[in-house]
Amino acid sequence: MKNLRDVESELRKHILFSALTPEQLTLVARHSRIVHLVEGEILFQQDQPAERFFRLCSGQIKLSRLSMEGTEHVIEVVHPGQPFAEAVLFMKKRVFPVNAEALMPCDVLAVDSAIFLQILYDSRETCFRLMADMSYRLHIFVNEIDNLTLQNATFRLVHHLLQQIRDCKAETADIELVTSKQILASRLSIKPETFSRILKTLSQQGLLTVNGRTIHIRDVQGLRCFGS
Amino acid sequence: MKNLRDVESELRKHILFSALTPEQLTLVARHSRIVHLVEGEILFQQDQPAERFFRLCSGQIKLSRLSMEGTEHVIEVVHPGQPFAEAVLFMKKRVFPVNAEALMPCDVLAVDSAIFLQILYDSRETCFRLMADMSYRLHIFVNEIDNLTLQNATFRLVHHLLQQIRDCKAETADIELVTSKQILASRLSIKPETFSRILKTLSQQGLLTVNGRTIHIRDVQGLRCFGS
Repeated sequence: MKNLRDVESELRKHILFSALTPEQLTLVARHSRIVHLVEGEILFQQDQPAERFFRLCSGQIKLSRLSMEGTEHVIEVVHPGQPFAEAVLFMKKRVFPVNAEALMPCDVLAVDSAIFLQILYDSRETCFRLMADMSYRLHIFVNEIDNLTLQNATFRLVHHLLQQIRDCKAETADIELVTSKQILASRLSIKPETFSRILKTLSQQGLLTVNGRTIHIRDVQGLRCFGS
Repeated sequence: MKNLRDVESELRKHILFSALTPEQLTLVARHSRIVHLVEGEILFQQDQPAERFFRLCSGQIKLSRLSMEGTEHVIEVVHPGQPFAEAVLFMKKRVFPVNAEALMPCDVLAVDSAIFLQILYDSRETCFRLMADMSYRLHIFVNEIDNLTLQNATFRLVHHLLQQIRDCKAETADIELVTSKQILASRLSIKPETFSRILKTLSQQGLLTVNGRTIHIRDVQGLRCFGS
């Protein structure tokens, strides 16, 4: 068992506690603890009352459900820094919807749900600060997902173009699209507007030019290095 | 100006209204409107009181700030489906921190901040439902970001490995890492634990085997197609 200060410092990393005053945080810390699990140890089981919610400090936790036929279905593997079972907190029926099992030795921050909910019930101001934080974080995340999706789509498109170049040593190349740009975009799981955005960026960087269905790669080596 | 039902259907897509009852939603809709902007039109200016917050239905909006020296700094380009200026809602000083300008013709859902805040003040239950929704959405987003980051890291590593293969027609290849795996991971901006996770996945799929600093690519063509 670690001391109160360690627990407080772990709590500060959890998004749900960003809005708490130092006094509220200390109160939560007094009702929280760091749990050590060995490999294979069960943290909680499906349908058990959810009196705590968690953040993984280190290790790996598997969340799984048993199907009606008794086969295990892995819902998620939790990595360090991720909160889990925190959505149950606000649910009417507070039971764990999954099993949680340590895949390796783990340190888990376990927080008392009732104490945290009481703080929110007692202070509308804290609720509003928390909603502000969550709304800000959601905003950041939406942008991050947008950027990452764009990066992934760019990788897929660049990879597809490079695959069409037969001559490994070529410095430039012309690629004739056999289908329309719409169909290619859809085959690469890229939204049409994102597809256009990527081609525009690549051409602004002098890597290629687009002329109808012909894509002229102006700098094959540059395209190979793109984004790496 | 569209009718109330159009506004309500746009509102339902905005995360902040997921928790509202039908009656509350109608009340918000009565105080919301769809604003049409032409290219270059200003929606709001920096330091103006923020009486509304928004969701972009179609088009593109540029959010920018003027620096002390008077040069424009683009903070963000908003794409359809994204909310914006919603974080101001919960702030003490409710003024827009940026300028918003239409980069092309836009449809923007504009919501009255005061009405929405009043609903939250009047109903703790709505606050709790909203916090539940936001916390759930944050959870989903954290996982999505984790997945996308992993995909990106995988693309970067696969791309790096393929670049080391000189013979274009080779079916298998041995790559000697000239640096340690830690240094390579850092050069590719991949966290060491993610790096190991990716190598493990690729070897589980029979694409490669790792032996100290030698990476044996068992299926070059398979690796080329990976993730595309």
